[in-house]
Amino acid sequence: MNIFDAIPNDLSNEILESLVENKNVKIERIVSKGHSSPESGWYDQIHNEWVMVVKGKAKLAFDNKEPVILAEGDYLTIEAHQKHKVEWTDADKETIWLAVHY
Amino acid sequence: MNIFDAIPNDLSNEILESLVENKNVKIERIVSKGHSSPESGWYDQIHNEWVMVVKGKAKLAFDNKEPVILAEGDYLTIEAHQKHKVEWTDADKETIWLAVHY
Repeated sequence: MNIFDAIPNDLSNEILESLVENKNVKIERIVSKGHSSPESGWYDQIHNEWVMVVKGKAKLAFDNKEPVILAEGDYLTIEAHQKHKVEWTDADKETIWLAVHY
Repeated sequence: MNIFDAIPNDLSNEILESLVENKNVKIERIVSKGHSSPESGWYDQIHNEWVMVVKGKAKLAFDNKEPVILAEGDYLTIEAHQKHKVEWTDADKETIWLAVHY
């Protein structure tokens, strides 16, 4: 299995795929293309999320701290209940994220 | 933080760095250059390990199934107690692994 493989042609919706899942952890591939979070609100998650941009580029915003632009290889941890949203992802090519929820 | 950054010049030993660690999960960056597991034995781990080659190339061997060559973006899960070893990693450039122990 390869993280760059099997990218669907239709990326009109963001695509989330679980690669590993058990009671303690979920490892997910997310493929975005020009997507952002809904305007209306923030993600507020009960688990921590470690996220890395494997390909592409994205901007993450937070309710109480400076936004971060993530390029290939950049990673960060979003603590549980840290309100955040995806401001934008690259509009020209897909952005592939690896997310570990724990 | 970037997965490609801060690669030490001295890679005479394989380098393991914990990026995230709690009671349920450990996310680790491993940098190898021409390293392989000790000849004498197999790794036999109590946890599952999901591993992806972010850069470089490596060959994983198992005690009871076919070996696997991993190139950039290739990932697999090594189940707990699946005996395995690293047969080789690229000798010419560093191989960067992302490992999630869970």
